[in-house]
Amino acid sequence: MNAQAILKPYVIGLDLGGTNSVFGIVDNRGEIKATTAIKTQGYNSAEEYVKAAVEALQIIIDQVGGIEKIKAMGIGAPNANYYKGTIEKAPNILWAKEIVPLAEMFSQALGVPVAMTNDANAAAIGEMAYGVARGMKNFIMITLGTGVGSGIVVNGQLVYGSDSYAGELGHVTMVRENGRPCGCGRKGCLEAYCSATGVARTARQMLAESTEPSLLREMNAEDITSLDVSIAAGKGDKLANEVFLFTGKMLGEACADFATFCSPEAFVFFGGLTKAGDLLMKPIVEAYNNHVFGAYKGKAQFLVSVLDGSSAAVLGASAIGWDIQ
Amino acid sequence: MNAQAILKPYVIGLDLGGTNSVFGIVDNRGEIKATTAIKTQGYNSAEEYVKAAVEALQIIIDQVGGIEKIKAMGIGAPNANYYKGTIEKAPNILWAKEIVPLAEMFSQALGVPVAMTNDANAAAIGEMAYGVARGMKNFIMITLGTGVGSGIVVNGQLVYGSDSYAGELGHVTMVRENGRPCGCGRKGCLEAYCSATGVARTARQMLAESTEPSLLREMNAEDITSLDVSIAAGKGDKLANEVFLFTGKMLGEACADFATFCSPEAFVFFGGLTKAGDLLMKPIVEAYNNHVFGAYKGKAQFLVSVLDGSSAAVLGASAIGWDIQ
Repeated sequence: MNAQAILKPYVIGLDLGGTNSVFGIVDNRGEIKATTAIKTQGYNSAEEYVKAAVEALQIIIDQVGGIEKIKAMGIGAPNANYYKGTIEKAPNILWAKEIVPLAEMFSQALGVPVAMTNDANAAAIGEMAYGVARGMKNFIMITLGTGVGSGIVVNGQLVYGSDSYAGELGHVTMVRENGRPCGCGRKGCLEAYCSATGVARTARQMLAESTEPSLLREMNAEDITSLDVSIAAGKGDKLANEVFLFTGKMLGEACADFATFCSPEAFVFFGGLTKAGDLLMKPIVEAYNNHVFGAYKGKAQFLVSVLDGSSAAVLGASAIGWDIQ
Repeated sequence: MNAQAILKPYVIGLDLGGTNSVFGIVDNRGEIKATTAIKTQGYNSAEEYVKAAVEALQIIIDQVGGIEKIKAMGIGAPNANYYKGTIEKAPNILWAKEIVPLAEMFSQALGVPVAMTNDANAAAIGEMAYGVARGMKNFIMITLGTGVGSGIVVNGQLVYGSDSYAGELGHVTMVRENGRPCGCGRKGCLEAYCSATGVARTARQMLAESTEPSLLREMNAEDITSLDVSIAAGKGDKLANEVFLFTGKMLGEACADFATFCSPEAFVFFGGLTKAGDLLMKPIVEAYNNHVFGAYKGKAQFLVSVLDGSSAAVLGASAIGWDIQ
């Protein structure tokens, strides 16, 4: 540990979600020393949000010995531009409909450097710093939540690309003819099939297209979630199992394509859908090995994040704080 | 220019192809000061090949003032492993059917450090050092020759991945149902459609499936090459034009997927097929803009290599010599 790490042993991590903003003060082993949270919404401006955030933060900053113990702050947020430290037109955050220089605003309010990245990238950095990707230089993080996000690490560095918007693997086209409409306005994207909402859509589609009995038929089709499909599959429901086979096969084939970019050591999966465990992971690995280019066969590991869901995002955000020079 | 560059102003570049091995001695502005070549084949062992190469090299090394003027050597070769400096089981090179430590062999024979990479990666590095990608930190090089190769640059570094075999974008799956057999043993790969041989296959398929008149019907179908298709298209042949529309559309859609990985500043195309010019490039750009994820729209440039075909590979190989520490 260098001198500065001893003098300033902590970073602040902020997981800025559509509903809640969770703060943690983290040491360099990934231990969360103090935590607090505010609602993300309900402010008329970014200034009001930052003011409320800093008020909440001040309490936990004092708990760890004051701002002089804090090296930096890292933020994981939707539509974050890493290069500019801005949130850019986040559709679900009322005070960020335009371009908000959030990193600079926090930096001025707190007096420490602040870096910002998007949530999937923060998860990848967290996994590299504290999780199953520790020590890896080349891996792909895939987040399976409401959408399909990704964070790509090459040569030990996160891939930001020319404009900070690299790593949108949820929007590769998997179905080129008559693909499902995707939230992005295009059709056939991986996300339209393999997100949590995509899994529910697949279940509704299979229920409509077959007469096979299924526990899921007891529900209102529109109310089915990926969790319901997972529970039904766990009970041996054949149709629900087919939903996961379909989802895993598509994810495995997509990963086979992703391998041609960066020949990763591992694919790391994160997010609600991974709770389905082997129901999802087995067909992913099987489809990957059936489809991948010969040179990559059998090389990549398929891992599920071991970081606890609620703290992973805060840890990931904090990890980018350590990287600020 | 630092002191060492003044003392050792040159690197050797070797473009090791299936037929010819072309050597150049290159200065740090990319000027080729002397050049020579030997046949790649006709040797019973790698030792014999290196001996013949060093004999030919000695003459041009003397021309530039002796080996003390040479900083390093860079090799671009098929099946090259950058991390290990080996050629690994190159199917078309008789003396490299197993694993040959070619970098070390040249280094011992010449007394200078030697690095090695594959041909598409060498082209990408050459383009970054001396070509249209000068100054770029994030771009994708796509080589359209007998196969479809690629070299990917992220954060100013070539992407080698976990095993040195990253950047095989010719083997993403573009057609998931009833895809064309590819040379790699799989089906539906980009390379099976968009390489020079893929273009000839598309022409034969379109000729067989339609009764449309075409200049290409005057030829024996098996003899048609991508150059013939290009010449016919240039004369206004409708079917030949459709071949390029089909090829460009698929390449543009593939590039739209590639953008989600690294959001590149540019796609740089290289190789025989690029001689078709706008016949190919216009449909690529059109399909890209029609298919790409919104955040990337209109950002990436589509460029054709300006390095002269014969020297580009030597320049690319030499450029990796400069990078040796």
